[in-house]
Amino acid sequence: MRDVVIAGVGAHATGHFTEKPLKALAHTAIWGALGDAGATPRDVQAAYVGNSLGGLLTGQEGIRGEVVLQHSGIVGIPVVNVENACASATTALRGAWLEVASGAADVALAVGVEKMFVGDTARTIAALAADSELELSDMGMQFTSSYAIHPKINIKARMREYGWTLADLAKPAVKNSFNGSLNPLAHHRKPLSVDDVVNSRVVVDPLTLYMCASISDGAAAALLCSANRASRFQKRPVRLSACVLRSGVYRLPADGRADSAEVVAREAYEKAGVGPEDLDVVELHDAMAPAELMLYERLGLCGPGEGPRLIDEGITTLAGRVPVNPSGGLCSRGHPVGATGLLQIAELVWQLRGEAGPRQIARRPKVALAQNQGGLTLGQESAVYTATILEV
Amino acid sequence: MRDVVIAGVGAHATGHFTEKPLKALAHTAIWGALGDAGATPRDVQAAYVGNSLGGLLTGQEGIRGEVVLQHSGIVGIPVVNVENACASATTALRGAWLEVASGAADVALAVGVEKMFVGDTARTIAALAADSELELSDMGMQFTSSYAIHPKINIKARMREYGWTLADLAKPAVKNSFNGSLNPLAHHRKPLSVDDVVNSRVVVDPLTLYMCASISDGAAAALLCSANRASRFQKRPVRLSACVLRSGVYRLPADGRADSAEVVAREAYEKAGVGPEDLDVVELHDAMAPAELMLYERLGLCGPGEGPRLIDEGITTLAGRVPVNPSGGLCSRGHPVGATGLLQIAELVWQLRGEAGPRQIARRPKVALAQNQGGLTLGQESAVYTATILEV
Repeated sequence: MRDVVIAGVGAHATGHFTEKPLKALAHTAIWGALGDAGATPRDVQAAYVGNSLGGLLTGQEGIRGEVVLQHSGIVGIPVVNVENACASATTALRGAWLEVASGAADVALAVGVEKMFVGDTARTIAALAADSELELSDMGMQFTSSYAIHPKINIKARMREYGWTLADLAKPAVKNSFNGSLNPLAHHRKPLSVDDVVNSRVVVDPLTLYMCASISDGAAAALLCSANRASRFQKRPVRLSACVLRSGVYRLPADGRADSAEVVAREAYEKAGVGPEDLDVVELHDAMAPAELMLYERLGLCGPGEGPRLIDEGITTLAGRVPVNPSGGLCSRGHPVGATGLLQIAELVWQLRGEAGPRQIARRPKVALAQNQGGLTLGQESAVYTATILEV
Repeated sequence: MRDVVIAGVGAHATGHFTEKPLKALAHTAIWGALGDAGATPRDVQAAYVGNSLGGLLTGQEGIRGEVVLQHSGIVGIPVVNVENACASATTALRGAWLEVASGAADVALAVGVEKMFVGDTARTIAALAADSELELSDMGMQFTSSYAIHPKINIKARMREYGWTLADLAKPAVKNSFNGSLNPLAHHRKPLSVDDVVNSRVVVDPLTLYMCASISDGAAAALLCSANRASRFQKRPVRLSACVLRSGVYRLPADGRADSAEVVAREAYEKAGVGPEDLDVVELHDAMAPAELMLYERLGLCGPGEGPRLIDEGITTLAGRVPVNPSGGLCSRGHPVGATGLLQIAELVWQLRGEAGPRQIARRPKVALAQNQGGLTLGQESAVYTATILEV
């Protein structure tokens, strides 16, 4: 396998863009990535396009990527449309990586794009169903309910076990809302206090509104090339040292704890030859704020129950030793599901290149981790876990 | 890149299976492929699942593959859901090939599965829209209409240019209906005469009902492994010499003729080091019967206008020099869009191993070509063309 670098990234802002079709959102991201690298459509030899909900929410079921790419002037190459729920964009990244690493292509494009906001929350939520036959037909439940079951079990158990308070659960949302307030691409840019978060409407006890990612539209793209071709592009290359993707391995054990995220992170560390102690910056999948606290443990950033302390001590803030979710994360930057993984990558590339503007982290970063996951059936085997390591 | 072989294939019958969910259709194909190879779920290190219409037609938008694979006992591996309209299954095959060829996995599974029959043809047709914003919203047309525009131009032009008659257009359907009558997995098993085809209801002049693929459910799978690991499986390995996929390259020139299929076939021949004269058996994309006549030319099987003669002289029949669509093709075997490419592969593997029963071709085949395509926007750049070469 050849070494692969990211030559350029681009992103559309996240938010509600009712008037913009998928093509327009993707166009901004694609031409952003091409422009960042100083590349043209003719440089692209293969493309992977991640999108999760386009069929049900936009009516565009088939060849979404080809339609999007044609609109951006990219034709005549292998195009693969990939889907893996909230990890669709990382799946696109992994596909582009494999094209380049294997030598099938020298330059490949990964795109993630999503339109979730259709003015009908129930329709958006139904589209997110993980096993539609089971959840929608047989059990009369849908994604939010099945999602809620897990965090409720998990988080309540953690609160009992660790003595976490509601204020502790709110801390990642508070930290990330500050980061998001500095990000011009973020969906929610209002800094929140612990009181704001704790006192916002209860969605599923103990989760409140500001602890949950909202419904966003958005797009992001990354242009990958083989390390030995990086010099033809204008920006400092960012090494893609590991991009690991797996479906869930373990059923939830009796105590309600999952560890597939941990397994995948370890595999990524091993591939890249780094450990959690080497990480300088992290973007992780805080679809609900307390997940960030639990992911700290799974990724090896702290021991059991120590998540709130990491924030209290400023370790994961922008000025800390290992800033987490400098973009604002899923709750503040936004979570357009099929774009999220590449929004994480774009943020980390900007951070590694020192181009993140007012939210640039204080210490000069060299190693970054993106943790992204998707899907959640009542067992865990159908969920998707990813871990990606970037280095300069 | 490593040499890759197909160690086993499996398929569900095509037809209308209202009571069977995607999971059940796929299960038959997956366990068929595993059983054929003498493999177990634990052997599978990566999987690609092709499906095109599951979001709109079954409500299963996200993580279709993970749900399907979990139901078949396959978890804990990279799973990539791919979509490329009627070429979705070949896209899955190419993904699995790249995993094994690159060394990312030693054994990978490709699955294609589709449920199209929902008792509402308009809904199925709407789901097939190629550029939904353009066709459904802006132009008020849908897939069949846009599809019809091309063949009408093409076929009428060919009829004028070559002197083809309606009876000529019917010939592939007649040949393939006979092949399909011998295939226990085929959707339509009634042998048709030229009169049957010509006198069936006009769909879009000059196409009649029996010249068009109908709405089918179905599934197919192939287990791939590196050539040096083939001996651990029980069946004679079939070499995957080329698997080429590209989005459309050229606009329709003035005379209404397309040549992306030709470009892709040539690329496959070159990769495999064979020419059209080496082909012993072909499965090709006869979504409408006259397409087979035109594809003969594009694939290099004959010169301009010679398609009907190939059938008249028996060259592409089961007993001929290069049998085409021994399975019955899309019109008789059926065209469950996200499964079709792997149904072609399964048929060719059975033919190459001499296991095709009453429809086994007369000459012992060594080299086979599968030609599969998908998507059709009003320009051609968003269409997908594939060519796959198999050898024993």
